[in-house]
Amino acid sequence: MHEIKISSHSRSELIDISGFVQKAVADSGVTDGLCVVFIPHTTAAVTINEGADPAVRSDITTELDKVIPWNDGYAHGEGNSAAHIKTSLFGSSETILVSGGRLVLGTWQSIYFCEFDGPRSRKAYIKVVADV
Amino acid sequence: MHEIKISSHSRSELIDISGFVQKAVADSGVTDGLCVVFIPHTTAAVTINEGADPAVRSDITTELDKVIPWNDGYAHGEGNSAAHIKTSLFGSSETILVSGGRLVLGTWQSIYFCEFDGPRSRKAYIKVVADV
Amino acid sequence: MHEIKISSHSRSELIDISGFVQKAVADSGVTDGLCVVFIPHTTAAVTINEGADPAVRSDITTELDKVIPWNDGYAHGEGNSAAHIKTSLFGSSETILVSGGRLVLGTWQSIYFCEFDGPRSRKAYIKVVADV
Repeated sequence: MHEIKISSHSRSELIDISGFVQKAVADSGVTDGLCVVFIPHTTAAVTINEGADPAVRSDITTELDKVIPWNDGYAHGEGNSAAHIKTSLFGSSETILVSGGRLVLGTWQSIYFCEFDGPRSRKAYIKVVADV
Repeated sequence: MHEIKISSHSRSELIDISGFVQKAVADSGVTDGLCVVFIPHTTAAVTINEGADPAVRSDITTELDKVIPWNDGYAHGEGNSAAHIKTSLFGSSETILVSGGRLVLGTWQSIYFCEFDGPRSRKAYIKVVADV
Repeated sequence: MHEIKISSHSRSELIDISGFVQKAVADSGVTDGLCVVFIPHTTAAVTINEGADPAVRSDITTELDKVIPWNDGYAHGEGNSAAHIKTSLFGSSETILVSGGRLVLGTWQSIYFCEFDGPRSRKAYIKVVADV
């Protein structure tokens, strides 16, 4: 099991962790198998989306703020219910295939840590499992 | 493969199944590996979110009802299209890491069965896979 | 690793790939284990939902268009930011249990490739992993 430390700098932010995940695959020595990325937080998630144009990331966080407003009569006293809801919408885990010692991602895909209630010190867990 | 039986009591409800999932891990005898939670329904899902304050759960279900209204000109005749849509937004599976015979969850994380069209008798499947 | 080729015919469309995924399980020879479906695109996703009434699929794509409008002041120049956002909401991977050489799905569940920016030629990756 590999652990990545992540520092976020905004309230909502998508941080590219593809390089760290690929390094975990390389370090594991696994040639063929699965790679699971798991986020152990309740106001942060994982997603896979376009890495080329940074505007895609800002469009995602901006639109999410419209769909799930920060203030909407929430009962939870910490004031971050929107971040909790976004976390469940995006999800805590993604599973990626591994072949030839590399993540099998599409041309435009990057793996993102999704900060929904930053800035904070965060972490992600990565596990690479070999085929039987 | 482990099967949990769940009884929901409301139309929309998040039910904490962390204890059942942890018991499945213990019963499996697996020390290190992966745990997959899969929901075999089309109007119920799985999510991982805060377990401490129950207001987080009610904020999630209340806000989802605002974003995906129960009545919105849907074509599906059963009247539960909103529940189907919420199910796809939250997802049918989550994969959690297992280390030292225990689920590797963050401090505030609990695993929830998400009822979106209750009350009903439901089930969840859990599978624990050992490292090679 | 199995690769499916998919041709979409609409801008937004849910395409049933359950038969292809089940065939991949059969071809793998795996009796008990896990099956991962991964979509290598940034404007297409995977979901599991009702297969019986096609109105459920159209309700899903129609409602998503209301929640995430095609035009909403997005910064990304390609005009398909809504498709990127929907992809992150639905997710790029699902993990399904395999038992007795078959996918363990609920009575009403089908596996869908979710086209959010078609029509296009697409693909899905499927990997079946046997128990240790």
